[in-house]
Amino acid sequence: MQILLTVAYDGTNYAGWQRQNNAVTVQEKLEDALSTLLKRQVTVRASSRTDAGVHALGQRASFFAPDLRVPLDKLPMVLVGMLPSDISVTAAEVVSNAFNPRFGAKCKTYEYKIYSAACPNPLMRRYSAFVPQPLNIENMQKAAQYFIGRHDFAAFCAVGSSAKTTVREIYDCHVINQGHCYTMSITGNGFLYNMVRIVSGTIMYVGIGKISADDIPVIIASCDRKKAGKTMPPEGLTLVEVKY
Amino acid sequence: MQILLTVAYDGTNYAGWQRQNNAVTVQEKLEDALSTLLKRQVTVRASSRTDAGVHALGQRASFFAPDLRVPLDKLPMVLVGMLPSDISVTAAEVVSNAFNPRFGAKCKTYEYKIYSAACPNPLMRRYSAFVPQPLNIENMQKAAQYFIGRHDFAAFCAVGSSAKTTVREIYDCHVINQGHCYTMSITGNGFLYNMVRIVSGTIMYVGIGKISADDIPVIIASCDRKKAGKTMPPEGLTLVEVKY
Repeated sequence: MQILLTVAYDGTNYAGWQRQNNAVTVQEKLEDALSTLLKRQVTVRASSRTDAGVHALGQRASFFAPDLRVPLDKLPMVLVGMLPSDISVTAAEVVSNAFNPRFGAKCKTYEYKIYSAACPNPLMRRYSAFVPQPLNIENMQKAAQYFIGRHDFAAFCAVGSSAKTTVREIYDCHVINQGHCYTMSITGNGFLYNMVRIVSGTIMYVGIGKISADDIPVIIASCDRKKAGKTMPPEGLTLVEVKY
Repeated sequence: MQILLTVAYDGTNYAGWQRQNNAVTVQEKLEDALSTLLKRQVTVRASSRTDAGVHALGQRASFFAPDLRVPLDKLPMVLVGMLPSDISVTAAEVVSNAFNPRFGAKCKTYEYKIYSAACPNPLMRRYSAFVPQPLNIENMQKAAQYFIGRHDFAAFCAVGSSAKTTVREIYDCHVINQGHCYTMSITGNGFLYNMVRIVSGTIMYVGIGKISADDIPVIIASCDRKKAGKTMPPEGLTLVEVKY
């Protein structure tokens, strides 16, 4: 029996999702809790290996548990009680043994939050990037639209990535503004290394007037990382949803 | 010359606003920054002494500075650069020397946030109280209305308070719901010790059906702390605005 969990975490104090030898990661904390619960070594597989400092509301992670004695509807709160307060399990379901949480994902949605004001807001600092310049929301929305579709996103990929192809399909990309907060939402069949943070940095550059919204198709076509905007910091990024 | 600052902070790691001998407070951090800037000991006076763990977006604090050399419009960002990232100064203005930030306040607005879901959300945990039961927003809104007006709020005051009178006037009290998040906003000419957290706990009890909205006038009239709801934890509370 394979169990698929929905996992939420505040990534501030973690060196990302994936287990490492010399740093504390979310995978390690979740595997420790499951190993304590099942009294044996448990390994989980996730939909996405989020980077250090990146958050999640809808990360998915699965493990094999023919020996699970806890009723499935009680499992999330049992795990919440065993996990630190910055990690939560919000759902659990049974999936087939053939299910793969990474390769089975049809699409993923990420959000990137920017707090734009003259001075930073301490209540937003853990979950957004601070931008002191005013942002033009209309131009940002126009820029976001250009990312939708099947494109070669080589210009939006961190240098040194080992991806076999840099072609990805984006199903939705839009920006909403509430007060000082600007949230970019992007849904696609997959993302290159640092892609969401570079797309956000490029849309932010459009917002502050450093580049024009109509430059986006040219930047995409260039396949040149240097033409795109900066890589935004991890604290603004949240993995919101994975669909299978 | 007296300067009035608007101060925002994440109260999670502080023993409240007011300077203490054996604990780190927001007042101490702000006074340290101002003392470094002015190269002399600076004391500030605040509109409210927020409790340990309570946040602020619109705390006000003033100090006398005939020797201030920094232009007023640059002062917030100069102080932000000297303060830890969980404290920010968002505005600075000149007020008369007779101005008193505590006694001059006409009204204050606090918000109390509750996250209500089957499992906690790690991205909300620092700035809201977690309530696992479902909440009835209509009943909570009805309950909130009963607090508006001039009442003796003795039933909503922590035992042992030294307030001269327990009569306060509430100008507005309402609850809004967005997804799993419930935000109570309350504006009044002043608040008793723990009053906002007890009012929130009472409205939360209405939300989970433990008491009825129409019980609120009876609880107020009783002046009996034991009739009101529980004191909610500090992390859900934010001092949003002080008006002069």
